[in-house]
Amino acid sequence: MRSLITTLVRVVVLVCVVLAIVPAVEAADRDKLLSEPGVYGTFASYSLDEAWGKQDQAVRIAQLTVLKGVVEQHREKLAIDLYLLRGLSDHADVLFRIHATELRETQQFLLDLQGSLFGKHLKTAGVMHGLTKKPNYVPGMPENLKTELKIPSEPGPKPYVIVIPIRKNADWWGLDQDKRAAMMQEHTEATVPYLKTVKRKLYHSSGLDDLDFITYFETSKLEDFHSLVLALEKVKEFQYNRRFGHPTLLGTVRSLDEIIEILAQ
Amino acid sequence: MRSLITTLVRVVVLVCVVLAIVPAVEAADRDKLLSEPGVYGTFASYSLDEAWGKQDQAVRIAQLTVLKGVVEQHREKLAIDLYLLRGLSDHADVLFRIHATELRETQQFLLDLQGSLFGKHLKTAGVMHGLTKKPNYVPGMPENLKTELKIPSEPGPKPYVIVIPIRKNADWWGLDQDKRAAMMQEHTEATVPYLKTVKRKLYHSSGLDDLDFITYFETSKLEDFHSLVLALEKVKEFQYNRRFGHPTLLGTVRSLDEIIEILAQ
Amino acid sequence: MRSLITTLVRVVVLVCVVLAIVPAVEAADRDKLLSEPGVYGTFASYSLDEAWGKQDQAVRIAQLTVLKGVVEQHREKLAIDLYLLRGLSDHADVLFRIHATELRETQQFLLDLQGSLFGKHLKTAGVMHGLTKKPNYVPGMPENLKTELKIPSEPGPKPYVIVIPIRKNADWWGLDQDKRAAMMQEHTEATVPYLKTVKRKLYHSSGLDDLDFITYFETSKLEDFHSLVLALEKVKEFQYNRRFGHPTLLGTVRSLDEIIEILAQ
Amino acid sequence: MRSLITTLVRVVVLVCVVLAIVPAVEAADRDKLLSEPGVYGTFASYSLDEAWGKQDQAVRIAQLTVLKGVVEQHREKLAIDLYLLRGLSDHADVLFRIHATELRETQQFLLDLQGSLFGKHLKTAGVMHGLTKKPNYVPGMPENLKTELKIPSEPGPKPYVIVIPIRKNADWWGLDQDKRAAMMQEHTEATVPYLKTVKRKLYHSSGLDDLDFITYFETSKLEDFHSLVLALEKVKEFQYNRRFGHPTLLGTVRSLDEIIEILAQ
Amino acid sequence: MRSLITTLVRVVVLVCVVLAIVPAVEAADRDKLLSEPGVYGTFASYSLDEAWGKQDQAVRIAQLTVLKGVVEQHREKLAIDLYLLRGLSDHADVLFRIHATELRETQQFLLDLQGSLFGKHLKTAGVMHGLTKKPNYVPGMPENLKTELKIPSEPGPKPYVIVIPIRKNADWWGLDQDKRAAMMQEHTEATVPYLKTVKRKLYHSSGLDDLDFITYFETSKLEDFHSLVLALEKVKEFQYNRRFGHPTLLGTVRSLDEIIEILAQ
Repeated sequence: MRSLITTLVRVVVLVCVVLAIVPAVEAADRDKLLSEPGVYGTFASYSLDEAWGKQDQAVRIAQLTVLKGVVEQHREKLAIDLYLLRGLSDHADVLFRIHATELRETQQFLLDLQGSLFGKHLKTAGVMHGLTKKPNYVPGMPENLKTELKIPSEPGPKPYVIVIPIRKNADWWGLDQDKRAAMMQEHTEATVPYLKTVKRKLYHSSGLDDLDFITYFETSKLEDFHSLVLALEKVKEFQYNRRFGHPTLLGTVRSLDEIIEILAQ
Repeated sequence: MRSLITTLVRVVVLVCVVLAIVPAVEAADRDKLLSEPGVYGTFASYSLDEAWGKQDQAVRIAQLTVLKGVVEQHREKLAIDLYLLRGLSDHADVLFRIHATELRETQQFLLDLQGSLFGKHLKTAGVMHGLTKKPNYVPGMPENLKTELKIPSEPGPKPYVIVIPIRKNADWWGLDQDKRAAMMQEHTEATVPYLKTVKRKLYHSSGLDDLDFITYFETSKLEDFHSLVLALEKVKEFQYNRRFGHPTLLGTVRSLDEIIEILAQ
Repeated sequence: MRSLITTLVRVVVLVCVVLAIVPAVEAADRDKLLSEPGVYGTFASYSLDEAWGKQDQAVRIAQLTVLKGVVEQHREKLAIDLYLLRGLSDHADVLFRIHATELRETQQFLLDLQGSLFGKHLKTAGVMHGLTKKPNYVPGMPENLKTELKIPSEPGPKPYVIVIPIRKNADWWGLDQDKRAAMMQEHTEATVPYLKTVKRKLYHSSGLDDLDFITYFETSKLEDFHSLVLALEKVKEFQYNRRFGHPTLLGTVRSLDEIIEILAQ
Repeated sequence: MRSLITTLVRVVVLVCVVLAIVPAVEAADRDKLLSEPGVYGTFASYSLDEAWGKQDQAVRIAQLTVLKGVVEQHREKLAIDLYLLRGLSDHADVLFRIHATELRETQQFLLDLQGSLFGKHLKTAGVMHGLTKKPNYVPGMPENLKTELKIPSEPGPKPYVIVIPIRKNADWWGLDQDKRAAMMQEHTEATVPYLKTVKRKLYHSSGLDDLDFITYFETSKLEDFHSLVLALEKVKEFQYNRRFGHPTLLGTVRSLDEIIEILAQ
Repeated sequence: MRSLITTLVRVVVLVCVVLAIVPAVEAADRDKLLSEPGVYGTFASYSLDEAWGKQDQAVRIAQLTVLKGVVEQHREKLAIDLYLLRGLSDHADVLFRIHATELRETQQFLLDLQGSLFGKHLKTAGVMHGLTKKPNYVPGMPENLKTELKIPSEPGPKPYVIVIPIRKNADWWGLDQDKRAAMMQEHTEATVPYLKTVKRKLYHSSGLDDLDFITYFETSKLEDFHSLVLALEKVKEFQYNRRFGHPTLLGTVRSLDEIIEILAQ
């Protein structure tokens, strides 16, 4: 019976979306935004308010159609990814990751989102910003390590996402560049066994919020991710973290349509 | 008079549950999930909202029947245990412990739970995840200690449950493996006098949330459990805890039917 | 005029209570519960919700009658004391202290309390548990000090109550038993000048919540109690407190009838 | 136009107050309460709830008349001062400072306040208690310093109030009395340049709440007060503060009538 | 279609504002307030409540007209700037920066704001105060550094605003003036590469709230601002920060009319 309802919802949502006046948009150069340096990544997490679930399904579907419209409209300039945190994180229900060349564009999207009929049910749980940079290889890092770091992770779906914000302590920044580099090499070496199954992306945050880094991971093997973090806890650099997580965000990677389908039920 | 109402509620609940369209399910191999390594354990605690208690008893019973249906449906793949925290913990009213081979399955259960008519009255208090692993005996641990650790706790009901989350500090992970092992042996020896009356289970959390371990205890003698913690506070390893508890969850082990009966009143 | 209303309320409450179907109960052996070791003491504090004060006085009186019934019913097995925190603590409005031989009994009382018509207006502010133990005199403690400790505090009403939760730091538990004992003797000596005017009771909490001790005080001279704490801050043992208070609960000792009268107004 | 409304409100409030059945009271010996040692000072801060501002002005004026009645009634035994925090502190809207010889009297006043029609709109933000003591001059303190400390601050209105709660760390209390005295003399000397423009009062809190001291200041020159705190931050004794502020309460000194007038608008 | 609504809103707002009874006011000497020492700067941030967005647009526009009136009325004495935080900070939706020669004037403005029909939808997120002072050049600071510091930042719009509150630790204030000065020179030198693209303003807070400094920045190049903070983290003085941010406020500089337009939609 559940799958019947699911199919029904899927059809209704589809029809609504087609009928909705969504301007034809050209998608932003998503690949560029996701790979180039100098791009701002924003992680905005939200909880749904108590009124959300008490509405009729038809009303919820109408509001989710608005969500779809808002996201599509901004995909011209932004790369927008969605994640379902509900059930796995106590911090929030959904997470948006937005890549933009200017944070003003991201602000405009989130204003439109929060101002929409759907957005009135969102309570902001947290907003974090970071900047992508060229990988800054430690001078003297062995060539074979550099080569290994360039091998992409195994293809195939990686259903789990983990986001860990990090703030280094003042001692870290007070160290000589050389000492920091040596510790970062040790850190990097500890990640090598997990490069194939755990995909990583790094954002630099100092000054944009109360963090220094946002670390983003995707994996299909949570056990490997657990082992990776355990390995990172044992390197010397870990002792210079003032904050690691708090919150650690754990969820599943979902398409906009999947999120809509889940929230419609 | 209270026992009369109790009996009545019991009958009504029973009838409702039988009438409800609950698909026949095969229980997951509960024993395996509870004993094998590589299993994910999730501890999800919830408070009931203020509207819950203001509803008619008939409405509450109908909603609790839905709860029963959701739990039964997911028992095919998951091992689900329930605990009553209300009155003993200020943190939450009920606690679910869910064992699964994939956290996606746990997320689907909690989505269905939170999306149900009953779930609309639940406010998430906390979610923690951990992974079971093979016991990693310290090299050189005396054989008699290993033997003692294998003796199961005394049979019979253990009405009390205690869950204590733990985060070690960076110094702990920075120690040589040998030093950590020696301290863990001292820790283990301190637990021996309580192995018979206090049942224990350990979950490894690093990376899955903001913890390193979740420790789970069942006992019928809370005084013994208190003495156990007091003994553990005195071993050297305790000084490497950055977080021990906060919250310490104390409650009673209850069957799904007992929880339903209590919440129906 | 106020005293007229007061008298009226007193009469109405009395009549209601008499009419209410309160099963005849034998009071638990209160003296034993309050003096023997191996007894669990629970401190449960609550705030009244905003809806409470907006109800008609008649409705409030009916609900307070239910409170009286619930308390009387459980006095068979439990020793239940009430305190008024409102106005003196920002933490909560009322505090229950419950002594029981099993925490399950306490849980059942608090379930009945929170599930009652009155309880629906209570918001849990905090729950702490501790265990009473035989006084563990430091070996070599001077006989005259032991004698002084056995002298009961002066008789007569002690209107003020103070509850201070304490968590020792890891260094404390890591000390040799001898060093801890020597410091506890110094601590004990500092309390001697106040034994007559400040009544004390100690509960051991490790493992039952996020504390090591709950200290309970009654006095008619708050200035003496202030001097006592000032003296305790100056002994060496104080430096091993990780938490002292937070919250410090300050209130007045009240009978159930006094609480009912105050809340009825 | 605003001043016209203001005048109107003033008249209406006056009439209401005169008509209200306020028992004729003799004011407590306010001067004694404000100058003698052994007096308890309570700082109770409140926020107004969201419903307050949504009521008709007539309803608000009626409720403020009740506030006036409650305050007047208790002025027989208590010295009650009011401050407006709104706009200058994010902690609360109004602050009451109450001086009493017994905290039970203060509790009765705050019970009556919170139980009144006006009080139902108050949300407790914080309650702190302290005891006044005779100035405990450091032995060997130079006579000229003692003399300077006795010179009262300049007369004239001091519109600004600042309240800073302080908790010393364990190291402070573990110091020899001599060392503490020497540091307090340095502290006192740093205050001398500001004695004329900044009025000070000290309360001792240990055991009455989670503080050791409450420091109270009035000034017409906030810049001088800023310089005073800056000077105090630089003396050695400052390093022994575990908590200084958090919150720092900043507001303006107001009469009961001024508060009523502002809240009526 | 969106731009059509935008234009419509713009017209309606304009008409309303013209019709509203706004007293003709002379603007305060804004330039003086923004450049001179001895001026108080207040940073008050607010969130809009849930009811705000659920109102009809016409009602919201009427309320925003009131906001405009309140701001205009106080511009006689105060310099008032507005910023949009929504979407970029999880702390609040809007930020007011108010410069005044007396904090009483600021309090009156915020009382009028919070008491207005618009203000009833504002929830105070935070209030911070600081005082402007003459730049206190380190003795012996090289002349060329002083010269560089006097060069104003590049003209042109600087759409981004960042506000970072700072509290130094007790060790900082315990240092010799010379050591502090040397570290401040190192700090200042680190800022030189960013003087052109990042505009800065400093406020001194000790005693006025729980901070020592409020640092205010405007830029069009957030990447430069990120690099500036990264450079500041590496100088020795950074190790003496007890609090740096928490919250870091990030938003966009907006005129009152722009804020009104955005909130009207």
